[in-house]
Amino acid sequence: MRVRAPASTANLGPGFDCFGLALEDPFDVVEVERSSELTVEVSGPGAESIPTRPEANTAGVVATEMLRGEGVHVSVEKGIRPSSGLGSSAASAAGAAVAINEEFGLGHSREELVAFAARGEAASAGAPHPDNVAPSVMGGFTVVRDGEVVCLEPPEMDLAVALPDLELSTEESRSVLPDSVALGDAVENVASASLLVAGMAAGDASMVGRGMRDALVEPVRAELVPGYRAVREAALGAGALGVALSGAGPSVVAICEVGDAAASAMECAFAEHGVAAEGFVTEPGNGAEVLE
Amino acid sequence: MRVRAPASTANLGPGFDCFGLALEDPFDVVEVERSSELTVEVSGPGAESIPTRPEANTAGVVATEMLRGEGVHVSVEKGIRPSSGLGSSAASAAGAAVAINEEFGLGHSREELVAFAARGEAASAGAPHPDNVAPSVMGGFTVVRDGEVVCLEPPEMDLAVALPDLELSTEESRSVLPDSVALGDAVENVASASLLVAGMAAGDASMVGRGMRDALVEPVRAELVPGYRAVREAALGAGALGVALSGAGPSVVAICEVGDAAASAMECAFAEHGVAAEGFVTEPGNGAEVLE
Repeated sequence: MRVRAPASTANLGPGFDCFGLALEDPFDVVEVERSSELTVEVSGPGAESIPTRPEANTAGVVATEMLRGEGVHVSVEKGIRPSSGLGSSAASAAGAAVAINEEFGLGHSREELVAFAARGEAASAGAPHPDNVAPSVMGGFTVVRDGEVVCLEPPEMDLAVALPDLELSTEESRSVLPDSVALGDAVENVASASLLVAGMAAGDASMVGRGMRDALVEPVRAELVPGYRAVREAALGAGALGVALSGAGPSVVAICEVGDAAASAMECAFAEHGVAAEGFVTEPGNGAEVLE
Repeated sequence: MRVRAPASTANLGPGFDCFGLALEDPFDVVEVERSSELTVEVSGPGAESIPTRPEANTAGVVATEMLRGEGVHVSVEKGIRPSSGLGSSAASAAGAAVAINEEFGLGHSREELVAFAARGEAASAGAPHPDNVAPSVMGGFTVVRDGEVVCLEPPEMDLAVALPDLELSTEESRSVLPDSVALGDAVENVASASLLVAGMAAGDASMVGRGMRDALVEPVRAELVPGYRAVREAALGAGALGVALSGAGPSVVAICEVGDAAASAMECAFAEHGVAAEGFVTEPGNGAEVLE
């Protein structure tokens, strides 16, 4: 049983810990095979940084939680670079949950699979934040609150991504967050998030873009990504409808009608700040799906 | 030119200063007649508390801003009790804006009329918060950010309202607000607001109700309304899908499939706390409209 599990971008500006959007590319491929014991194998770019002991591996934790003692060999072929802000560990967790559910005929709903994958994700991110696992399992745009997942089909749009050659752990990105924020900033985020959700529901990419403003988290996290402000301006100058740090960063995502110019502009702006970055264009994608 | 301008309920829990919903009832009726000077007259319940000097009256300020010197007599027949949390002054401002626009053939868009009405509303509330004027002008459910108004048609549902015999000025309600809030509470409000907007867009009243949770403003404002917590519980116990202080209070609004039981239950719960309250049931309504 082989499953393709997509990368995702969380937050989209105002939706810290609650918004996620599945990407068409990149993706992990997770394969499961019944076995006498539980083993995990990881290959592909960045694999060397990922623990394979089942209790320390996102996919391993998912398998343990779902199978409660039954053996399985989980093989993860990484297509998503770890610590890039593109939901790499969440994709592995999502792929494992979907693959195990199919292989063992467990019959869990997609929402239950989000919950299993979130527990796996917690093994790597430290806490079960389902903002990346929800889109990796369900596809499209997702809002998570208290374990409830609402799924909306995003408008047709390009997603320009700049993936800089920097590593930023979720832990480090979380450590800079303030304990308290100004009420006015909180209110502004509520309004921006609401605009973004309304834009998703209406299929209005421009409204989604206008909603991509974050007064709470991005101002402090941006300091961890050299050149971020210039990259953001460059994308907007190249026609992007909205720009945000992707999840905890360091990747940057811009939504666009056509994304090529923004992807190049972000690459250049990073380069001007001495950071090598790979720009690429993708689209909103489906959730984890079985490969024939 | 006579215009019917509806009451509205702002915030709906998580959407402080940004969400509003027009009510079918109650409403003000605003009449304008060309005249040699600018005069304002107010009648109906609570009229004695409303200043009629044009520069201090919401409808008067709207007329001044829209007509820049031309005379008009504005007559406001109050149907919405002032300081009740049901957007009373906003309705008068909205009614005046729509009536003057029609009578003088000014051709402003609904969004421009929201801006004019917000300036009038500022005369009474102290700052131009368009969260009540937007629904009073445009109808339905509105999200306001930076002067942009997004309008969504709400699901079919009842709105049970309890209007207690208490007065709470917007000023007093604002004075208890904290300057800063916990990041976690802000994030929770973003998630709840997003759920509420998604529910509105999907026509799902139950999802709207689940979104009606406020960690930022309601916890402190509830202290100003004796019995609020019991009233909230009573409404939920009577089948309400969600409950919130209406705007700055003291009114309480509950969304319901059928609202009669919740309206009675809220009346009783207020009475048990020594507060006389009038419960009634209405529905989401249209924006200000010309009466034949």
